[in-house]
Amino acid sequence: MKQAFICANKAAKHDDVPIGAVIVCDGKIIARGRNKVQLNKNPTLHAEIDAINKACKKLAAKFLDNCEIYVTLEPCAMCATAISYARIKNIYFAAMDEKGGGIFHNSKIFETDKHLWKPFVQQLPKYEEQSAIMLKEFFKSKRKI
Amino acid sequence: MKQAFICANKAAKHDDVPIGAVIVCDGKIIARGRNKVQLNKNPTLHAEIDAINKACKKLAAKFLDNCEIYVTLEPCAMCATAISYARIKNIYFAAMDEKGGGIFHNSKIFETDKHLWKPFVQQLPKYEEQSAIMLKEFFKSKRKI
Repeated sequence: MKQAFICANKAAKHDDVPIGAVIVCDGKIIARGRNKVQLNKNPTLHAEIDAINKACKKLAAKFLDNCEIYVTLEPCAMCATAISYARIKNIYFAAMDEKGGGIFHNSKIFETDKHLWKPFVQQLPKYEEQSAIMLKEFFKSKRKI
Repeated sequence: MKQAFICANKAAKHDDVPIGAVIVCDGKIIARGRNKVQLNKNPTLHAEIDAINKACKKLAAKFLDNCEIYVTLEPCAMCATAISYARIKNIYFAAMDEKGGGIFHNSKIFETDKHLWKPFVQQLPKYEEQSAIMLKEFFKSKRKI
């Protein structure tokens, strides 16, 4: 998760909301992703999608069966569905996202879409505050501009 | 929609489920997408995402405000959310997708996610049969192999 936070901080540097994701396979980091919506002018390039794109390319595989994803914020419905399509077995995330989250909030995608493959999902409260502070600081700095 | 079917047929040629999408802006096609999950070994590369990636690149914009998307099948939750993030104003699709659809089926994403920007959505029954036959033929040919 610490590596995911490093990715998130890099996102802020190019004016993207600081969200980072890391994909781990057999104990090794195989892909690092960060929010690149502003950087690439592409609304689909959330940190999780960026990481999945890289991991699939690296393994030359569409299924990331033995992988886990660490994200600094609860994935949205788009990313949660993408993670399910990639068959990533575990999702660990730092902070809940009441507004944009799609696992425990809003569509609660894994509850409402019975056809989706279901990964194990766990929030890691230990990292919640770090994520919340990072996001708060980012939006505070944006308001100053 | 006819152009979206042409894209779908191209997808079948590289062994991908035949689903196509076309993005239209001010009456002109600005991007054509097709399912490339098998081709690129990437589970996120649905026809809609492929089309959005291309349209954003072409317009160098993350919002496709004045655009409409034509898809041969009801978008899944991932794609419907991506379309919403891209602010595409209208979604037209050919056939309903009871199993994988995310607008009128399963998570019914635009009903359950109150924070999402809501495009206008319309199924075009005129094209329903064409999409259903195309998919049936594809899966029939796969079973023969």
